Amino acid sequence: MAKKMVKKLKKRVKKYVYFFGNGKAQGTGKMKDLLGGKGAGLAEMTNLKIPVPAGFTITTEACNEYFKNNKKYPPGMWEQVLENLKKVEKAMGMKFGDEEKPLLVSVRSGAKFSMPGMMDTVLNLGLNETTIKAFIKKTGNERFVYDAYRRFITMFGSIVMGINRQLFEKALEHMKEKKGVQLDTDLTSDDLKELVKEFKSIYKSETGTDFPENSFEQLRLAINAVFGSWFGDRAIKYRRLHSIPDDLGTACNVQSMVFGNMGENSGTGVGFTRDPATGEKRFFAECLINAQGEDVVAGIRTPLRIEELAKRFPDAYQELNRIYKKLEKHYKDMLDIEFTVQEGKLYMLQTRVGKRTAAAALKIAIDMVKEKLIDKKTAIMRIDPEQLEQLLHPTIDPKSKSLVVAKGLPASPGAAVGRVVFTADDAEQWAARGEKVILVRPETSPEDIGGMHAAQGILTARGGMTSHAAVVARGMGKCCVAGCGAININEEGKYFVVDTNIVKEGDYITLNGTTGEVILGKVDLIQPELTGEFGIFMKWVDEYRKIGVWTNADTQMDARVAREFGAEGIGLCRTEHMFFEPDRIKAVREMILADDTIGRKKALEKILPMQKGDFINIFTEMKGLPVTIRLLDPPLHEFLPQTDEELKFLSEDMKVPFEKLKARNNTLREFNPMLGHRGCRLGITYPEIYEMQVQAIMEAACELTKQKIKVIPEIMIPLVGHVNELKMMRQMVIKVADEVLKKYGIKVHYTIGTMIEVARAAITADQIATEAEFFSFGTNDLTQTTYGLSRDDAGRFLPYYVEKKILEDDPFITLDQDGVGMLMKIAVEKGRKIKKNLKIGICGEHGGEPRSVEFCHRIGLNYVSCSPYRIPIARLAGAQAVLKEKMKKDLSKSTV
Amino acid sequence: MAKKMVKKLKKRVKKYVYFFGNGKAQGTGKMKDLLGGKGAGLAEMTNLKIPVPAGFTITTEACNEYFKNNKKYPPGMWEQVLENLKKVEKAMGMKFGDEEKPLLVSVRSGAKFSMPGMMDTVLNLGLNETTIKAFIKKTGNERFVYDAYRRFITMFGSIVMGINRQLFEKALEHMKEKKGVQLDTDLTSDDLKELVKEFKSIYKSETGTDFPENSFEQLRLAINAVFGSWFGDRAIKYRRLHSIPDDLGTACNVQSMVFGNMGENSGTGVGFTRDPATGEKRFFAECLINAQGEDVVAGIRTPLRIEELAKRFPDAYQELNRIYKKLEKHYKDMLDIEFTVQEGKLYMLQTRVGKRTAAAALKIAIDMVKEKLIDKKTAIMRIDPEQLEQLLHPTIDPKSKSLVVAKGLPASPGAAVGRVVFTADDAEQWAARGEKVILVRPETSPEDIGGMHAAQGILTARGGMTSHAAVVARGMGKCCVAGCGAININEEGKYFVVDTNIVKEGDYITLNGTTGEVILGKVDLIQPELTGEFGIFMKWVDEYRKIGVWTNADTQMDARVAREFGAEGIGLCRTEHMFFEPDRIKAVREMILADDTIGRKKALEKILPMQKGDFINIFTEMKGLPVTIRLLDPPLHEFLPQTDEELKFLSEDMKVPFEKLKARNNTLREFNPMLGHRGCRLGITYPEIYEMQVQAIMEAACELTKQKIKVIPEIMIPLVGHVNELKMMRQMVIKVADEVLKKYGIKVHYTIGTMIEVARAAITADQIATEAEFFSFGTNDLTQTTYGLSRDDAGRFLPYYVEKKILEDDPFITLDQDGVGMLMKIAVEKGRKIKKNLKIGICGEHGGEPRSVEFCHRIGLNYVSCSPYRIPIARLAGAQAVLKEKMKKDLSKSTV
Repeated sequence: MAKKMVKKLKKRVKKYVYFFGNGKAQGTGKMKDLLGGKGAGLAEMTNLKIPVPAGFTITTEACNEYFKNNKKYPPGMWEQVLENLKKVEKAMGMKFGDEEKPLLVSVRSGAKFSMPGMMDTVLNLGLNETTIKAFIKKTGNERFVYDAYRRFITMFGSIVMGINRQLFEKALEHMKEKKGVQLDTDLTSDDLKELVKEFKSIYKSETGTDFPENSFEQLRLAINAVFGSWFGDRAIKYRRLHSIPDDLGTACNVQSMVFGNMGENSGTGVGFTRDPATGEKRFFAECLINAQGEDVVAGIRTPLRIEELAKRFPDAYQELNRIYKKLEKHYKDMLDIEFTVQEGKLYMLQTRVGKRTAAAALKIAIDMVKEKLIDKKTAIMRIDPEQLEQLLHPTIDPKSKSLVVAKGLPASPGAAVGRVVFTADDAEQWAARGEKVILVRPETSPEDIGGMHAAQGILTARGGMTSHAAVVARGMGKCCVAGCGAININEEGKYFVVDTNIVKEGDYITLNGTTGEVILGKVDLIQPELTGEFGIFMKWVDEYRKIGVWTNADTQMDARVAREFGAEGIGLCRTEHMFFEPDRIKAVREMILADDTIGRKKALEKILPMQKGDFINIFTEMKGLPVTIRLLDPPLHEFLPQTDEELKFLSEDMKVPFEKLKARNNTLREFNPMLGHRGCRLGITYPEIYEMQVQAIMEAACELTKQKIKVIPEIMIPLVGHVNELKMMRQMVIKVADEVLKKYGIKVHYTIGTMIEVARAAITADQIATEAEFFSFGTNDLTQTTYGLSRDDAGRFLPYYVEKKILEDDPFITLDQDGVGMLMKIAVEKGRKIKKNLKIGICGEHGGEPRSVEFCHRIGLNYVSCSPYRIPIARLAGAQAVLKEKMKKDLSKSTV
Repeated sequence: MAKKMVKKLKKRVKKYVYFFGNGKAQGTGKMKDLLGGKGAGLAEMTNLKIPVPAGFTITTEACNEYFKNNKKYPPGMWEQVLENLKKVEKAMGMKFGDEEKPLLVSVRSGAKFSMPGMMDTVLNLGLNETTIKAFIKKTGNERFVYDAYRRFITMFGSIVMGINRQLFEKALEHMKEKKGVQLDTDLTSDDLKELVKEFKSIYKSETGTDFPENSFEQLRLAINAVFGSWFGDRAIKYRRLHSIPDDLGTACNVQSMVFGNMGENSGTGVGFTRDPATGEKRFFAECLINAQGEDVVAGIRTPLRIEELAKRFPDAYQELNRIYKKLEKHYKDMLDIEFTVQEGKLYMLQTRVGKRTAAAALKIAIDMVKEKLIDKKTAIMRIDPEQLEQLLHPTIDPKSKSLVVAKGLPASPGAAVGRVVFTADDAEQWAARGEKVILVRPETSPEDIGGMHAAQGILTARGGMTSHAAVVARGMGKCCVAGCGAININEEGKYFVVDTNIVKEGDYITLNGTTGEVILGKVDLIQPELTGEFGIFMKWVDEYRKIGVWTNADTQMDARVAREFGAEGIGLCRTEHMFFEPDRIKAVREMILADDTIGRKKALEKILPMQKGDFINIFTEMKGLPVTIRLLDPPLHEFLPQTDEELKFLSEDMKVPFEKLKARNNTLREFNPMLGHRGCRLGITYPEIYEMQVQAIMEAACELTKQKIKVIPEIMIPLVGHVNELKMMRQMVIKVADEVLKKYGIKVHYTIGTMIEVARAAITADQIATEAEFFSFGTNDLTQTTYGLSRDDAGRFLPYYVEKKILEDDPFITLDQDGVGMLMKIAVEKGRKIKKNLKIGICGEHGGEPRSVEFCHRIGLNYVSCSPYRIPIARLAGAQAVLKEKMKKDLSKSTV
């Protein structure tokens, strides 16, 4: 009975409020879930005996129960607030709402993650007609107090009650006009008194209630506002964007005020323990004299550099120096801090891990290892793999001014400046004469590849993150803004219209592929520097990484870039892009238009030496590393132009009757080309195509082997759904390869494998493994077919799905682990059941996405293959996967 | 050592030859694998003490080893042949190649399954210049012997050596001309002697060798020819078509000759133990007097009815009567027999289970149960489910003459006669005035549904077995010949050209949907009779069947037909076809063209009462049985016309600017509509569409419930890939349904479930089951997405795949058990892990295919749903599945 009672009582008195002050806090820095980042930081600093104004944190749990409970506080919470307020009063020797020594507090939101859209700080809470009198008495400065009062009403009115801040600002302006003064500081105490009255009447007319005189009422409303801001539109949107769950809730911090605006011996500032832009090891802080926090944020006055501070407040500066070092040593990370000096005495108001640029993150991590603050593993875990990309591309100089006229999808990161051209041919011609160009197209097709290569960046009006332009540009590491619907392209007129601007051929524009911005004119770029730190860091990464990192590369240039980034092989060399080279496309079309095998073979003979040359170049570049070559994959109609006009032109060019071209085009047209006559289905029905390709591969391999250059060709059959398809293609490959080897009279080791890119291949992987030396997951197509989702068409509903959280993530960006991933797992298990050492990789775009790389590591893939510019990201993600796995194991050990 | 030796010896003397004769055989009737069907039958008859001329069978194993061994006999085989030949000689009191009592033999192929393309019989083998002399002496009939000799040379030359038979025929004709006679029988002994000489010279000039005088050499060559015919083109093709493995091999039967052509007291005949056309219980045989087997086959002379035989050979007839009854009793089935009477004495030459029509099969099975020859289970196993279909459709009267001018795909069985029309509208108009019409279209689209309904049959020039025309026609039980490339349609001119014929609008044609034949003019049809036997049989079937058989039905008429065939519910009621009704399509298009939700809702309100009416009709028809209604599935662009011309017409009709229509059409166009904005993706992005449909369903249900008519609505959400899609749709359905129920103030039990038609749904079935009361496998789409295979486009390679045995079967016809089936199995297991009693069905076309039905039974589905005309097939397949399972269980018990 008694036990039950206690339990019941305990339940009733659940702890919702955590006190900090007097060098002791009930919370700790580890309690971010419960106290939010800010609350945990305040508790930790307090426990470190760092001077922090006393206060308390209302937990995130209270916030969640508030919402569950139809916006009522959970039982006991308010009582605990009052209780802890008493403790604060005691610590500060003041009393909330008191007529003599009134305690003023700040109220701040504070979730686990810092989030825009959460409630701003309300300062000076507790002021009312009663307390200001005492406050005036205490400070002896009526003007200061009324200034604080009018600021409080503004903050409370706008932030807590949602009144348009402009109304207060206008009244202030009006007052200044009336008084004939320029600056706020020129208003007298009486002017401010009058203004307070006016502010209160604004408050009343806007809210229908009087401005709350009762301090506790003020506090209650402020706490409600903090809680309420958790479900504000901006906060929700931010959480959607960053995959933050709704049920984290926000904490609320109530802290006794200290004043940076109590005269010239007071001030308030912010700082970073190291340079957040470069990572340089130097204290980096700024301070405003005689100011409150909001002034710093507003950025109206220019703050003092930290060096000045040392001169003005030598004691406080010394203390600050001591404290930031102590904090950094304690947190073992670069920190972002906020402080206030009240009449010469330093108070710390916040500390948290500081945001930093990718370059800074890298430098800080490496420096801290050198300083023995952290170990290599921690350094590796500190860098967000996605952030690395920033280091590999040109970026827009933040100091330069830019006129953003439109925003498309950030399809491929980096920045580019160039003159606008509207066709791939123009791009190549202009580039050939040394011009930097931006290729602007409604959308791109494989025929534009040459122009894309030649351009600095690509801008398209249509298409999504996985459109042709986006995929190819990412592969090339080239800046691309895709699906920018705001631009209206007139191809014939060679201009585009955006908003009220006409951009003509030859005009300069700048693209920011990281943000999707389109900027008029030339903007300065900062070129990436793969400094020593980058190299050191990547070496560390590779010490831990187990999964291989290969690349998707179709050209010698791709291959070269990839090797520079550390590729350990080519996991996907698409051969179709080679077919689009201007000198080949004609022969390819001849092949397509041929009436029979003999005609096709004749045309293929023309392509053979060119394709062989491609392979020689790529093999040479990748000397000694495996090169996985996928035989022709796309349906043949992709190689023919689609419009009548283009067909007519082609008809004249090829001297083939237009009707024949048109008829062939119609025959080849497909309802669902994604599910059509492509991949090995081509190889099976037109064996001569694949035979030519295998011959080219093996002849290239033989010629290099003769020159003592090591080659490891891996021949990959696409779109296999049934083992018999692979069996047939395998026999064909062996037949052709053996003929070539015999002709050259040498031996070259080659392997034959397959893409796993339809569910059936995954499900029957045990059968398929009997004919394969390796598997490579083509997760782009596997995602499309597993979901029954065409990425070309998904634009009409997929963004909505992600927005409405029907899908957590876009499955074309982050691997769908439950569905597609499960099929991969099944395929790995079934495949390795038959061949224990079956080599398995992934060559979809997921191969360069950190969470997907981690998944691939977990299910035991041998390698991921990604576009060259994603290689460092994949390497880091691979290393982090190992470390996370270890951490998880250690954790489960320690809890057992 | 000794043991090894014996083993080695045993291996050397492996038994390749099985003797039969003198009332005792080494083989039995069960050894079909080894002895082939014919050899097993001869052995069995011998053992039954039935008079069979002595002989021996060379095993299929010998044939296989012959091919493995580079066309050499396996060691010992020839020796065993010689050994057994001795036994035959002994049994017959004659000697092979002997100068006095020469033994003649027949040589026949005989595989496990009777197969066209295998070698024909060679009779009279053993004749040569030596033996004919003895033979003449023995028979005293020189003319007879020379006639036999010239026949033997013809058979040996053409069948064994592959000489063009025409050469022999011409020589014979020439001889007759020379001798001035009309009939073969008018040639004298000398004429025949001369002919033999001539035949031998033809033989020499064609083969380069002399006609073999040595009887053993003749035998060796004949055996080689039998073996060789196993890999003849026709045999290979037949095996491909009927999924018979290549490694079965053929046996070879060598049997002593008896002669039906030894005068008027000899004869040869064939018979069936019951009427193979009707199943009537009467002996059905024909006999040729004084003839050899080849004369019967040639069909030159009209054979005698069995009644005549009784008069001519009363003793032999009595014996034959006794034997056929004994055989039927022994084999417990209707048999096909061959016999010869030599000088009054009866010999049996072959027995096997007789081929029969579907009607006969049914009658025989039922009669034999009544006669207690077999039990019901056996009767059920005796009927091939596919055969049943013959009983449900009109067929072409085999007695009528028909001019087949083209052959398309047998897309939907049955036969139809009617006048040709070229548009769906014409079909409806002509039919409305009482004309029977055949709708001829390049291909059909959903807009043609009305015309298809009105027509007797459908003929299309394009499209495969799963094209729109084929699928819809099968659903309607309507005859359809699809993809008939030989017809060239001129739509404007309203005629089609085939070969040299022009068929104009209004001309009669006849279609045979069972064979794919297109016939000029009217041909007599036999209407199906679902006689009493059919009803009895289906009742037996249902006694054993466990899996439910539901139907796919979109209209009241479909539902009525389906109930007549025994449907236990509707497993798939597609709602999109309802949208195409002429009075609705306009409102549907208004909905599609609406700019916002309000506009769409306004248009949907017009559709609501019509759709509600549809459901009332269907519910009423299915009173008391569940009706599974799938909410709208196809992408919206399917409801807009596609050509500019049609759009212009629509623009005028709807008073919507052409440009707007065109623009909307372009916006809706998809690269891969199969993987596009359809299914629940529509319901999620345009909730008002599904809301209207649910409202219509529930209002219909409420109104009937008020009238005390029981309704069981099951609402099915299509194309779910992620549980959240279903969750959202489920909430929508419940909301709308509850509103309707509240409005009517009554309760109607309804369920909500989902199609499983993409791999992701199958793989995550445990998650999806949490939101579903039932699953229904949409195996058409599941097959398409699992294989990554668009059935609209597969025509370019899928037939080749099946032909080349890359795929055993067309996966759109027979369920791919390894791939798609494995996913189904996973989904059933995962789904039932969460909900033990989750109802699971299948509504793809596989639901009516026997092997697929068996699979569905095996993995524990609750029901299959198929088009109305497939219901009896599915019922039978369901019962057979139970019996097969039991047989397998019994077998494994008996072997344990």
